[in-house]
Amino acid sequence: MITHKFEHPLNEKTRIYLRVEALLNQMEQACQLADKLQHQLLFRALFDLLDIFDQMQLKSELAKDIEKQRLAYRQWQGIEGVDQEMLMTLLAEIDEVHRNLLAGERFGQSLKEDRFLSTIRQRFNLPGGSCCFDLPALHYWLHLSIEQKIQDAKQWMSILQPLADALKLWLKLTRETGQFRPHIAQSGFYQSDAEGANILRLSIPLEYGVYPMISGHKNRFAIKFIDFHSGQASNQTVPFDLAICS
Amino acid sequence: MITHKFEHPLNEKTRIYLRVEALLNQMEQACQLADKLQHQLLFRALFDLLDIFDQMQLKSELAKDIEKQRLAYRQWQGIEGVDQEMLMTLLAEIDEVHRNLLAGERFGQSLKEDRFLSTIRQRFNLPGGSCCFDLPALHYWLHLSIEQKIQDAKQWMSILQPLADALKLWLKLTRETGQFRPHIAQSGFYQSDAEGANILRLSIPLEYGVYPMISGHKNRFAIKFIDFHSGQASNQTVPFDLAICS
Repeated sequence: MITHKFEHPLNEKTRIYLRVEALLNQMEQACQLADKLQHQLLFRALFDLLDIFDQMQLKSELAKDIEKQRLAYRQWQGIEGVDQEMLMTLLAEIDEVHRNLLAGERFGQSLKEDRFLSTIRQRFNLPGGSCCFDLPALHYWLHLSIEQKIQDAKQWMSILQPLADALKLWLKLTRETGQFRPHIAQSGFYQSDAEGANILRLSIPLEYGVYPMISGHKNRFAIKFIDFHSGQASNQTVPFDLAICS
Repeated sequence: MITHKFEHPLNEKTRIYLRVEALLNQMEQACQLADKLQHQLLFRALFDLLDIFDQMQLKSELAKDIEKQRLAYRQWQGIEGVDQEMLMTLLAEIDEVHRNLLAGERFGQSLKEDRFLSTIRQRFNLPGGSCCFDLPALHYWLHLSIEQKIQDAKQWMSILQPLADALKLWLKLTRETGQFRPHIAQSGFYQSDAEGANILRLSIPLEYGVYPMISGHKNRFAIKFIDFHSGQASNQTVPFDLAICS
């Protein structure tokens, strides 16, 4: 059965984390500059990230969250039945990621100060603003050799590596806390409790032709399934799998 | 010698035309949905076009400009030394493009009214806003078969075909009016007259490591070459080719 995977953040911070994850993935893929347009995805993701860093103290938030995970996993030390070797490896990984995170600059600081990037950042969001006459410096850069361009792209990515590593680890550990369990939405609707949870993960069979609209916060959430073709609330009985991740 | 091609519009209307051309090219390429990210370029170009249509009566402007070209080419009818067969073919092409342009809807009207597109248009420009939880309908659409998605993309493109044909013809005829001629920028600077011109086209050898900053309007323009690495005005003597297109 083909399903449609879906994730929903239950708080504003996790919403930002998931967006940042998507943007980092986009940068990583677009770094290959595989066709004439991919540079747009690269710069768009990079500038979206810089916008997010301007709005939020992402580094300190993430450091606090990693610290919480470290404390939680430390409690398993010496407890019978817990694979201590695996636990030590994980704690060492958390330590390293946390250390690199704190040792690094404010997220994106040197990217924000990069002369070439600042030149193009201002006009990049104009509708159709990546024409040569709007961004002559970008147009020149595009004429550099592919090796040179990929080297630049990788260097920009590498500046964000401490963020990428920390976020990846936090999201991985968070996602692992949830187990997929089957549920049924009667008349296209389902609601439940999610005390202290961060992310809902859904797996929905495609055959119902529906997508979820989710509202919720830390304590409670509601899922309304919408019919893709009509755009209206579905009244079908929809079986789906749900994992609640803390 | 490897050169760097560059175009600069000399008035606001031509500036919009060149942006629209770039966005239509982007849509056409991204229509293939060749990788996991191309849909972003497709929707971004589509929504940028809708923004431009909101700001400007593009259809009537373009119809007037095509009409001017028609009148100009009609004056060559019956003149000795002019290939009359070629001229008739061109005039027939202009007639057809002009007719289709006027017969069509206001640019992008049905795209603006499309339920699926309007659902995703509002949030598409959020930084990192193309996550599944921001745009669940888009996320569902991405799970459709590649054939279905390409069919949708081509259908959206086809709505813009009268615009694409008219703009392509106008730009082709405009670009053909200019002949590339060699010039020299002393101390990285060049200025000249361009009475009634629409587009400057430049071809600049890459070896000088410079890109042009052009200021100008219909009557006069100035080109200042900027050193890519320092970001400062260059004081090199830069030979380049220039075509002034009316």
